[in-house]
Amino acid sequence: MGMIIREMCADDHDDIHETLTACGVFNEEEIRVALVMAAAADEYALFCAEIDRRVRGYVCIGRTPLTLSTWYLYWTCVHPQVQGTGVASALHGHLEQFIRAHGGERIVVETSSRAEYARAHRFYANAGYQPAGRIEHFFKQGDHCVILCKPLTQHLPSSST
Amino acid sequence: MGMIIREMCADDHDDIHETLTACGVFNEEEIRVALVMAAAADEYALFCAEIDRRVRGYVCIGRTPLTLSTWYLYWTCVHPQVQGTGVASALHGHLEQFIRAHGGERIVVETSSRAEYARAHRFYANAGYQPAGRIEHFFKQGDHCVILCKPLTQHLPSSST
Repeated sequence: MGMIIREMCADDHDDIHETLTACGVFNEEEIRVALVMAAAADEYALFCAEIDRRVRGYVCIGRTPLTLSTWYLYWTCVHPQVQGTGVASALHGHLEQFIRAHGGERIVVETSSRAEYARAHRFYANAGYQPAGRIEHFFKQGDHCVILCKPLTQHLPSSST
Repeated sequence: MGMIIREMCADDHDDIHETLTACGVFNEEEIRVALVMAAAADEYALFCAEIDRRVRGYVCIGRTPLTLSTWYLYWTCVHPQVQGTGVASALHGHLEQFIRAHGGERIVVETSSRAEYARAHRFYANAGYQPAGRIEHFFKQGDHCVILCKPLTQHLPSSST
């Protein structure tokens, strides 16, 4: 399986839409907002994983206003067909290198406490994200916001040398 | 001292600018962003305290996208000349009533751990905000993000009946 991590472009819209839908954890409103943000390359940095000429995963990140070196990870999504094959790790390796190269020193992610996100939480824990907060009933009754943060060291990871 | 809590309007710009500057805790970039948001009445709800025909405090709040009933308090500022006279309490009473009336069930605020914010932290604690998270070095080295949340009951406070 050949995989390329590259910047997203307008042509990727349909593949991103399919990936967000197939993923199964996002509702209609979330998919609508995610697609608007995926088209706003002037405001966010967007990277996707292309496998056999189809986009099968992507991430959306952005510098946090009024902070010196904090970035937010807004969206991360991998198509179920390729989950468990290292796509998320490759995307995250790329985004971390990008953030470091732009002087970023930490990544914050706000995720959901829902059971569907258990896989994502395991991924974040393994990737070095640490719990930073929890806002009860943030999304809706019983659906809490889990805030995670990964501090980044400024040297490049050894895998990229 | 007569005080009116009312919606903000474009004419209030200069008073808001003076209040943000006099307040002494915001840097230039923060004041710039706060003024842009204070002019975006289509995106945020903005209320100010008018005292003797001058605006001496204001709040900026907004519904949180992708949540059912969570609101963010983005900015709150009271001119030092009138701090300690109940301006912040009056503004907060008003915004809580507004949020409840719009189905809101909680208010989240992200503030700074810096010593200059000790007064604000006391105000939030007294007003019923509870700690929900802390992101180390979020704003800059040593300047952490303190996340607070106040759950709102749906009945109107007795003071307004």
